[in-house]
Amino acid sequence: MVCKDAIKAFDMKREARLSEIGEGLLLKHILDTLGDSGDLLLPKGDDAAALEFGGRLVMAVDMFVEKTDKPASMGWRYAGYKAVAAVLSDIAAKGAEPRYLLTSLGLRGDMLFGEFEELWSGILECSRDYGVRVLGGDLSETGEVVVDVTCIGVGGNLIPRGGARVGELVAVTGAFGDTGAALHALLNNIEAEEDILMRFLKPRTRLREGRALAETGLVSACIDSSDGLAASLYHIAEASNVAIVVHKLPVSGKAGEYAEEHNLDLKELVLYSGEEYELVFTFSRDGVDRVREALEKVGCGLYVIGEVAEGRGVYLVDEEGGVEDIRFKGFEHFRA
Amino acid sequence: MVCKDAIKAFDMKREARLSEIGEGLLLKHILDTLGDSGDLLLPKGDDAAALEFGGRLVMAVDMFVEKTDKPASMGWRYAGYKAVAAVLSDIAAKGAEPRYLLTSLGLRGDMLFGEFEELWSGILECSRDYGVRVLGGDLSETGEVVVDVTCIGVGGNLIPRGGARVGELVAVTGAFGDTGAALHALLNNIEAEEDILMRFLKPRTRLREGRALAETGLVSACIDSSDGLAASLYHIAEASNVAIVVHKLPVSGKAGEYAEEHNLDLKELVLYSGEEYELVFTFSRDGVDRVREALEKVGCGLYVIGEVAEGRGVYLVDEEGGVEDIRFKGFEHFRA
Repeated sequence: MVCKDAIKAFDMKREARLSEIGEGLLLKHILDTLGDSGDLLLPKGDDAAALEFGGRLVMAVDMFVEKTDKPASMGWRYAGYKAVAAVLSDIAAKGAEPRYLLTSLGLRGDMLFGEFEELWSGILECSRDYGVRVLGGDLSETGEVVVDVTCIGVGGNLIPRGGARVGELVAVTGAFGDTGAALHALLNNIEAEEDILMRFLKPRTRLREGRALAETGLVSACIDSSDGLAASLYHIAEASNVAIVVHKLPVSGKAGEYAEEHNLDLKELVLYSGEEYELVFTFSRDGVDRVREALEKVGCGLYVIGEVAEGRGVYLVDEEGGVEDIRFKGFEHFRA
Repeated sequence: MVCKDAIKAFDMKREARLSEIGEGLLLKHILDTLGDSGDLLLPKGDDAAALEFGGRLVMAVDMFVEKTDKPASMGWRYAGYKAVAAVLSDIAAKGAEPRYLLTSLGLRGDMLFGEFEELWSGILECSRDYGVRVLGGDLSETGEVVVDVTCIGVGGNLIPRGGARVGELVAVTGAFGDTGAALHALLNNIEAEEDILMRFLKPRTRLREGRALAETGLVSACIDSSDGLAASLYHIAEASNVAIVVHKLPVSGKAGEYAEEHNLDLKELVLYSGEEYELVFTFSRDGVDRVREALEKVGCGLYVIGEVAEGRGVYLVDEEGGVEDIRFKGFEHFRA
């Protein structure tokens, strides 16, 4: 909190570094861009955020880290957008409805104010796209940019990871492979179709789909595919003490073209790309029509890719009936 | 989630680096140390945490950053403890009751597992000390350790920063200066009394005091002193559109001794140390007995240090009646 005249006098240039601008003015920029706070029990910018709340509280947090999550050619607006999308996707996978965000920003002193402004506008853009509200947060100085987003929402019928039962079907909400192709293009400065790039840069989250699935009461397990399809299947299988057998990989046509053009292994792209933010879920066979209908009502297809079996592990059955292990290899932090 | 046999077979040595251990085993260590989850609507380790909740939801988040917040000689257990204490202190200042934590950890790949274990045990220790429960979080790899803690609590009568009125008294819950002395000792490898060091390393938060103050219904503005006494007074004054006149600085005796011994400016230590996690608050003069009584019931003294006046800014009146400006200089990120 600094003298208001100083705030007015200071021209926040986009080329100014945060070390020149200081925390007080940054905070002012943030608070000025937050909406009306008439229903809040504490004013914007106070030590905590507060409001009346009743129901099933659902909470998740996701940390976006510059070095790990932001290829150099990814704009800051996309980084902000994606930091929010990532945590919304966790809420989507539980069939819950996100309501509020707290954003804790670790920023570099040598970051340009223009870069920060883009990052912040991406955060707000994604919040608006999904009707969630930024209530507050924290500002810190870090050696690399860290955007930690906490989401608070409400749930009805919540879908766990670990509820899959033997004999059920395994399905997904979309095709896989685009995000790996996009990352390959971004890291190697290869031109790629905008459709593919945007799957990585500005991901769609499956919030309506998650709620539709939860409302059917038929879905026994669900996870979002942020760690990749293979890891998502492993997480469900492990948490449910079952095996999963995949009959048909959900291959994106565009990823197929990209893989052929650039000599990449398409199966790898489909299984191990990650950050698609699709939902991976299980349900009993006799519910397939109702599940399909629920998804179609929100404009999404149902892609059945396999079934739940006794045992453990994740397997792929090819067209000739041959079975192979799908390796567990998702995005695992700390490992090379 | 990795094969359970692999988990058993792997001996998590304290000298092993996180890059050798991997995210899966780290996560297992974290989940194993969380308590019973019988009342949760989603199991531990799922994408989100969920439970029944009704009331006035109060939320705050605070990021602890290795480079800024952890002197090299501060142990990791203290770092974890303090990361939690910092956010609890925000909740305390609003008079609310903290219930749940989400911990988002950014860890270095070259961090030793033993260091991580200490950090985590400090997080759990502070949670236990204040009866709050870690519900979940996120794990990421970062270039420096970042511990971002979100606290979710409930409030009754919440105290804002901006409610101070002209003529009211300004008070604090304790003496200031120890944390600056401790930081001076830690940074310069000077031996200091344990009492002083522990004020910095393992701060007490004023949760009971904050609730007691809120319950009186007499406290008009409150903030915690994490940014230092001067900044706290400025925050209240600015948010309330008033001036604050300090008559008596709340000087810690031990800080006085340390300042004399090491030739430090005691007034600077008292006004600008920060991270004391004391409460700074205002209330009407005729409530002074009731406010004192409420604090005494929870074992805390009331230290009246000044009064709220018309105008703006923060001033110090000395014993001869001379008035001087107290500079605004708290801990401001990004500024040198």
